Amino acid sequence: MRRINIGLIGLGNIGCGVVKILQQRRSLIAQKIGIEILIKRICDKDILAKRDVRLDKDCLSRNVNDVLDDPQIDIVVELIGGIDPARDFILGALKKGKHVVTANKALLAEHGNELFAVAAERGKNIYFEASVGAGIPIIKSIKEGLVANKFSSVFGIVNGTSNYVLTQMSKENCSLSSAIKSAQNKGFAEKNPTLDIEGVDSAHKLALLTYLAFGKIVALKDIFIEGISQISSADIAYAKDLGYEIKLLAIAKKEADELEVRVHPTLLPREHLLSSVDGVFNAIYATSDLAGELMFYGPGAGQLSAASGVVSDIVDLTQDIKAGLFRPTLNSIEDSSIKGLRKIDEFENRYYIRIMAVDKPGVLAKISGILSKFGISIASVTQKERLQSRVVPVVMVTHEVKEKNMRLALKMIDKLQEIKDKSVAIRIEGV
Amino acid sequence: MRRINIGLIGLGNIGCGVVKILQQRRSLIAQKIGIEILIKRICDKDILAKRDVRLDKDCLSRNVNDVLDDPQIDIVVELIGGIDPARDFILGALKKGKHVVTANKALLAEHGNELFAVAAERGKNIYFEASVGAGIPIIKSIKEGLVANKFSSVFGIVNGTSNYVLTQMSKENCSLSSAIKSAQNKGFAEKNPTLDIEGVDSAHKLALLTYLAFGKIVALKDIFIEGISQISSADIAYAKDLGYEIKLLAIAKKEADELEVRVHPTLLPREHLLSSVDGVFNAIYATSDLAGELMFYGPGAGQLSAASGVVSDIVDLTQDIKAGLFRPTLNSIEDSSIKGLRKIDEFENRYYIRIMAVDKPGVLAKISGILSKFGISIASVTQKERLQSRVVPVVMVTHEVKEKNMRLALKMIDKLQEIKDKSVAIRIEGV
Repeated sequence: MRRINIGLIGLGNIGCGVVKILQQRRSLIAQKIGIEILIKRICDKDILAKRDVRLDKDCLSRNVNDVLDDPQIDIVVELIGGIDPARDFILGALKKGKHVVTANKALLAEHGNELFAVAAERGKNIYFEASVGAGIPIIKSIKEGLVANKFSSVFGIVNGTSNYVLTQMSKENCSLSSAIKSAQNKGFAEKNPTLDIEGVDSAHKLALLTYLAFGKIVALKDIFIEGISQISSADIAYAKDLGYEIKLLAIAKKEADELEVRVHPTLLPREHLLSSVDGVFNAIYATSDLAGELMFYGPGAGQLSAASGVVSDIVDLTQDIKAGLFRPTLNSIEDSSIKGLRKIDEFENRYYIRIMAVDKPGVLAKISGILSKFGISIASVTQKERLQSRVVPVVMVTHEVKEKNMRLALKMIDKLQEIKDKSVAIRIEGV
Repeated sequence: MRRINIGLIGLGNIGCGVVKILQQRRSLIAQKIGIEILIKRICDKDILAKRDVRLDKDCLSRNVNDVLDDPQIDIVVELIGGIDPARDFILGALKKGKHVVTANKALLAEHGNELFAVAAERGKNIYFEASVGAGIPIIKSIKEGLVANKFSSVFGIVNGTSNYVLTQMSKENCSLSSAIKSAQNKGFAEKNPTLDIEGVDSAHKLALLTYLAFGKIVALKDIFIEGISQISSADIAYAKDLGYEIKLLAIAKKEADELEVRVHPTLLPREHLLSSVDGVFNAIYATSDLAGELMFYGPGAGQLSAASGVVSDIVDLTQDIKAGLFRPTLNSIEDSSIKGLRKIDEFENRYYIRIMAVDKPGVLAKISGILSKFGISIASVTQKERLQSRVVPVVMVTHEVKEKNMRLALKMIDKLQEIKDKSVAIRIEGV
């Protein structure tokens, strides 16, 4: 049986998962594909740490060149994460004629254009299934399963940590900080959870989904990013009363000939399947012109789940290698109907707004007057409590309004003497 | 650019969809894969009928041998459905050295073992993405995306017609027959909807899912099949009161070293994502040991949706052909931990039961006595109405019980003088 050799860079959590799967499923995989996959070399800064996986000492190295310079290694699996030195390692591997598998969404989001170009030049491939939704085969599904489709939108819950936090707040009616603490206790959030909570991780993944669906890698600076740190359990409860759940969504969608790419907390109607995706689960919703509306759901993180995606990439590459095939990545055809990115000011959304106003006659008239001045029309108003001359939350749902107008209106409202706290505005996504 | 020729057998609804996509997306696909796909010959009994697709007259034929005998045709796409003559056409194509794409679940469920064996012998492939869930890339996801996984269960809603009917009954509180009429009016059900309503179509698809997840094609006669024709809107309403939706599920799951393969109406807890899958949508839920619990959701039927799946198969085959590769189908490794199929009598489930009893003292004691005699323990009882000496529904939820015991108990209960109608029992699926 033909054997294909892998070099693994990075023996962290996912790296150990890949080693485990390739050990335990060696014969299953060999039976399925007629190729034996062998990890010939593993490189890590720390080769002495105790890990819960059986390792052949001879195969460990601290020197990355033991992987990159080995002519018998066909596939380099990069699992160290981060930009540097991962970028150099991947470029080095491609230049040495190796295919690459990675789960490094940050790197691909920021340097994907360069890396994919070098790969194409060299007739090599970069596969990255585990970079979005861990073991959910979302990359393969968009790239291959939906190969003939054009997309009007791809959106979803792609960060398990923030979804766990929002779910906790919703189900337990607890504060953001105690939900984050609970996530940390369960190992679902890092000590510093900023990248997850502030939406940056979601934006990295969104950049890749946008690339797959629309053929563009959008620069991070062009993605509108708003995290969940301003979400309160009160807003979650009020949204629920209105029939919505609040989810941190990553959204790429075509509006006329422009593309909107954004990450922000979103009110989703309870009937939408995504609003039932709870805890650390991820789900990606895609609107395609042939196959219709699709959703892909599963755990968005976890050692074996991510490693499952990495191994599927390795298997696909072994098939390509066996056949001597350079299979184009199938994912880089730009949607030529898209003329540009829509500017944030121009986004149009319905809004949930909560205004903390002193409950006295005339306040609502002032607020409505300002909204109307900016062309913002109100679909519903609820005053949550009635406490004469005390501050009470006024919750409104608006019709579609341009982002810019909403911002200007709220700024003016917040300057009113009767407004006692910064107003909250959360976008509502239609279905 | 290299060109690969397709022969299409069957120019019905899906066939026309495939022609449309390959015409309209020819350049998109060519850009993605570096191969031009051309439909060289289309064969149908009726080549004169008006169809909503532009056709080159010279490429039409009534003689299937114009496809099978053409040495320039690399891929035969069979879309006539049914067993005969589809089986002969596919065997003919394989024997002439052609790869095959089909959406024919009935044929594969009944003759898959033979067809896959002939394909393997000849070094050719049979791809069948559109046979389950139309354009949802479920086959590719299990086969390739989850290549290293072992499965403990695969289950889901795989028949859009019956799901539409159940959804109508649930949302509109209408009868089965009026829901079926509504489905027919909307084109979601055939004039004779038996195959869909009685679960046979679901069983065909389940046979394929079972093959993918467990490496076995289970004969149709070994699949327990119960349709939705006995479901009443009353039971749907009572189930809802208890926190459940009723769905027609196709289920394959491992229990110890046995496999259970069954299609039947099922009470699903409202919290389960599948219980929110409404209308003609399909969703397949898979429990895998590495990637965890996954769900794939989308339209389960429709011309372009199914054709999208067919075209993804064609594209995959062109890649294989270009590379001169025989790619094993990757799906036929039998799970050796499975010793056999579990017999229906041995299935264990919780049950919803509705008993129509005369409301007089002592009846409940008699019923409970019989249940207890068969070791059936009751989790909850609700008597829906109180009408002295009139027939009222008694709704019970049981703990886990063997199928056989439940059947025997109900038979005995139905013989009681106080029982005025056949009792209803619907399985409850845990999550």
